[in-house]
Amino acid sequence: MANSTAPDGDGTRPPRVVALGGGHGLYSSLSALRRVTTDVTAVVTVADDGGSSGRLRRELGVLPPGDLRMALAALCGDDEWGHTWSNVIQHRFRSEGELHGHAVGNLLIVALWELLGDSVAGLDWVGQLLGAHGRVLPMSSVPLDISAEVVGADAGRPDEVTTIRGQVACASTGGRVRSVSLIPAEPPAEPQAVKAVREADWVVFGPGSWFTSVLPHLLVPDLAHALVTTRARRVVALNLSPQRGETDDFRPETYLEVLREHAPKLGVDVVLADRGTVEEAEPLAAAARDLGGRLELADLAMGDGSPRHDPELLARAFERILND
Amino acid sequence: MANSTAPDGDGTRPPRVVALGGGHGLYSSLSALRRVTTDVTAVVTVADDGGSSGRLRRELGVLPPGDLRMALAALCGDDEWGHTWSNVIQHRFRSEGELHGHAVGNLLIVALWELLGDSVAGLDWVGQLLGAHGRVLPMSSVPLDISAEVVGADAGRPDEVTTIRGQVACASTGGRVRSVSLIPAEPPAEPQAVKAVREADWVVFGPGSWFTSVLPHLLVPDLAHALVTTRARRVVALNLSPQRGETDDFRPETYLEVLREHAPKLGVDVVLADRGTVEEAEPLAAAARDLGGRLELADLAMGDGSPRHDPELLARAFERILND
Repeated sequence: MANSTAPDGDGTRPPRVVALGGGHGLYSSLSALRRVTTDVTAVVTVADDGGSSGRLRRELGVLPPGDLRMALAALCGDDEWGHTWSNVIQHRFRSEGELHGHAVGNLLIVALWELLGDSVAGLDWVGQLLGAHGRVLPMSSVPLDISAEVVGADAGRPDEVTTIRGQVACASTGGRVRSVSLIPAEPPAEPQAVKAVREADWVVFGPGSWFTSVLPHLLVPDLAHALVTTRARRVVALNLSPQRGETDDFRPETYLEVLREHAPKLGVDVVLADRGTVEEAEPLAAAARDLGGRLELADLAMGDGSPRHDPELLARAFERILND
Repeated sequence: MANSTAPDGDGTRPPRVVALGGGHGLYSSLSALRRVTTDVTAVVTVADDGGSSGRLRRELGVLPPGDLRMALAALCGDDEWGHTWSNVIQHRFRSEGELHGHAVGNLLIVALWELLGDSVAGLDWVGQLLGAHGRVLPMSSVPLDISAEVVGADAGRPDEVTTIRGQVACASTGGRVRSVSLIPAEPPAEPQAVKAVREADWVVFGPGSWFTSVLPHLLVPDLAHALVTTRARRVVALNLSPQRGETDDFRPETYLEVLREHAPKLGVDVVLADRGTVEEAEPLAAAARDLGGRLELADLAMGDGSPRHDPELLARAFERILND
């Protein structure tokens, strides 16, 4: 890539893409984007309070590493080296004891943070270990909690609005999440994530848990400002099916409505959705137009009936969009 | 090293050295030997039952990884990459919680073992990660326990002989260890360790905890047979000071007497001892002659008064011996 430092997207260098999200959704988008460009930066939520990540942030006072680890694994090198170390970092201990459930990569990332005293440098070292096709950054430099306004969390009082706290609680509520906010309320953005958004050609939101993985980026002031003002074009990749709990009764266009409620100034260029998931295209196309963009329908689902994106199909869709 | 595959030690390839031991002693010998040759294999005790290693073998049923990890760290590459990953594997979590005291490299090694189902392959992967100057092998393919006959373990009954079990108990007993054995009694040797001993030019015993790190190799039948019958020359590197507990009232020659009691057929070519540690050279020289070897005295201690080997001085002594 002799021209990778060329100043703009004139075809002399690969498109510079920033992918926002967390968890399995971000894993999907990164698995696809790595096939389309060599210049990917993941900007990852740091609000997880469950599982191995939750235990680590409580025990050691660190950022929750799990979503960062998964993003790194998604970008691992194509050779035996990359795959082996990716398998190692994704490996979880199973036992009756204290290590049960911990993912090895979470422990490795935390160790690097403790040694180097620098979250970004620690993630870059793991990226080097994996021969990662891109970079993984936390969206904020401090651990966050998600707070959600939920309607009908108590089945006996379906109209009552309550506030719940924590990613696990939000993602698994029996009620309907109406909005989310962050604790602390205006957290510091990771400066390198802001820089990556400013310098990007494309920014990709989703797929992923909408309230707990995709929207939180828009609640970090400096990052939200960069996302709204960047010269990059913006793609929103919708989920294949509503997530139980957080987005139970969502229609496809509801994702966009909620996005606009949380970031009224955010323009969107392309909304990408799975053709099989969208029963009526017009309301979704109208919602996309309301955000300033167009709807792109494509076959994106795995052939096995599961609500997962096929990385190859998603890659082809991203490729069409990025080259448009 | 164009000639590194030459068939014998005629000066066309670096000397092939196997270092036996465990813990800090082996770390010292490896730190020195890596300066002398590029062909080092560490064969490491797997009887630790304390600390992070003890917890891991109890929780996950694996070989205790700690001594293997330390040996790998001692052989790490000279560049920033090697040093960083060496620091990572040596890093220990400190907390009030479940991870407290675990060394990161122990967790990484165990994860590789679980993933690959092969102890040697797992260690080779960590060796590659570190850019290690050599190879690290377990002496047995199964976790072991050390059992010791101890005189006067109970201060009130100074002449009574009792049997205690476990490396920690042996290393810290208030009595005098008379002999050690292994549980299970005739454990399987790691075949690649046996092969390394057979193909070595030199085998180095010690320094290290005599009963719990150095002698156990001689209690693994196939490994002991290889150590006795190999065409390699044998060096015994003595400790700088008696270890509290295990070898409390040892004179320098006592190490050799105990070695002979545990392996009557083992010949020794060179006994290496620190000049400042040996008050009377003649009894030690006589004990060396009894084993078929000669005494080499050298200044080996750190200048700071601590009972530790200076790796540079130890390297120079090994170099003289190997080139003799």
